[in-house]
Amino acid sequence: MSLTDSLKWRYATKRMNGEKVPAEKLEAILTATQLSASSQGLQPYTILVISNPEIKAKLQPAAYGQAQIVECSHLLVFCAWTNITEKEVDEYMNDVAAKRGIPVEALTDFKAMVQGGADSKTVEERQNWAAKQAYIALGTALAAAAEERVDATGMEGFSPAEFDTILGLEEKGLKSVVLVALGYRDAANDRLASAAKVRRDKEKLFQFIN
Amino acid sequence: MSLTDSLKWRYATKRMNGEKVPAEKLEAILTATQLSASSQGLQPYTILVISNPEIKAKLQPAAYGQAQIVECSHLLVFCAWTNITEKEVDEYMNDVAAKRGIPVEALTDFKAMVQGGADSKTVEERQNWAAKQAYIALGTALAAAAEERVDATGMEGFSPAEFDTILGLEEKGLKSVVLVALGYRDAANDRLASAAKVRRDKEKLFQFIN
Repeated sequence: MSLTDSLKWRYATKRMNGEKVPAEKLEAILTATQLSASSQGLQPYTILVISNPEIKAKLQPAAYGQAQIVECSHLLVFCAWTNITEKEVDEYMNDVAAKRGIPVEALTDFKAMVQGGADSKTVEERQNWAAKQAYIALGTALAAAAEERVDATGMEGFSPAEFDTILGLEEKGLKSVVLVALGYRDAANDRLASAAKVRRDKEKLFQFIN
Repeated sequence: MSLTDSLKWRYATKRMNGEKVPAEKLEAILTATQLSASSQGLQPYTILVISNPEIKAKLQPAAYGQAQIVECSHLLVFCAWTNITEKEVDEYMNDVAAKRGIPVEALTDFKAMVQGGADSKTVEERQNWAAKQAYIALGTALAAAAEERVDATGMEGFSPAEFDTILGLEEKGLKSVVLVALGYRDAANDRLASAAKVRRDKEKLFQFIN
């Protein structure tokens, strides 16, 4: 099946049936998410993968009681880094040097560019930028889940501040920005399961300059 | 080939060879992008698809002279809507009603939710939110291009203000937020073409709460 067919198959599942996503399918989704594009390759986010039922139950009220939080198999919490200091940039440079088999000194200009980019932003701009990088990964994760025929719902309807408190994110230098519930649709109880997909018509979404 | 294989194949191409992306491949990439997930389904963005050489040449200095701008086949300019008024929301509701074959009056609560969400944000928050939605589409577009074995580079290195002026976006109610250059790698002149892919190790990127 093509990616287009997979994307037509998927929808924002509101009710899930509690069935577990098999380990190999979860692994495929996380691998695609890991491979997601990121500006300068930095990936300034961390993704919590929550299957623990007690934690999910604790989070549910902070997501307006939405059913997917507890009915899903795994809840992905995309968290933006709250800061990008020399520590994070150095760690990234060491990783690039190791994986490409080059001395880290060869990356001096690249390091200056990445650190300069981070330092040139206000705290708010930096966090918005990190959040946008996480949204690229979100797009990849939703596509990958659809390819595996795993239902996936992107969710913005939650209180990031409450999630951060429950999950102890502040001390980890993280802020929750968006969620993905992974699982299987409860078609009998989800009125959207059979609804026609609505997307903006191409002639409105795209403007061609030929 | 799996999506994972496609994502391993792709990289942020810095030099392209000017070869045109065939119409059917472009169509597949745009269809996947159109099907991209969006909060509340609103898709508050418009995507310019630029193949005109003169316009690309005009844009190049506003993107720090980067070669892909003119060497690519098509330049996608993702533009966030600058506002979300009753006009846009009504248009969306009419579209939902038509595509699902239901009266628009059945969408009164949904309309209130979408409009309420937009109105509860400051101008800046709303534009950041629209930009993040465009980044989901960006993630989908990059994955779709890789599936088609078309090179695609996400680009933030440009002056949105200059792009907006050159493309007359303000009067269209749009702001450029991110680019994708579509084309074919010039492997001989792109030193990144043969570089090992670097992504954060899974044990760092993901934190499991089982």
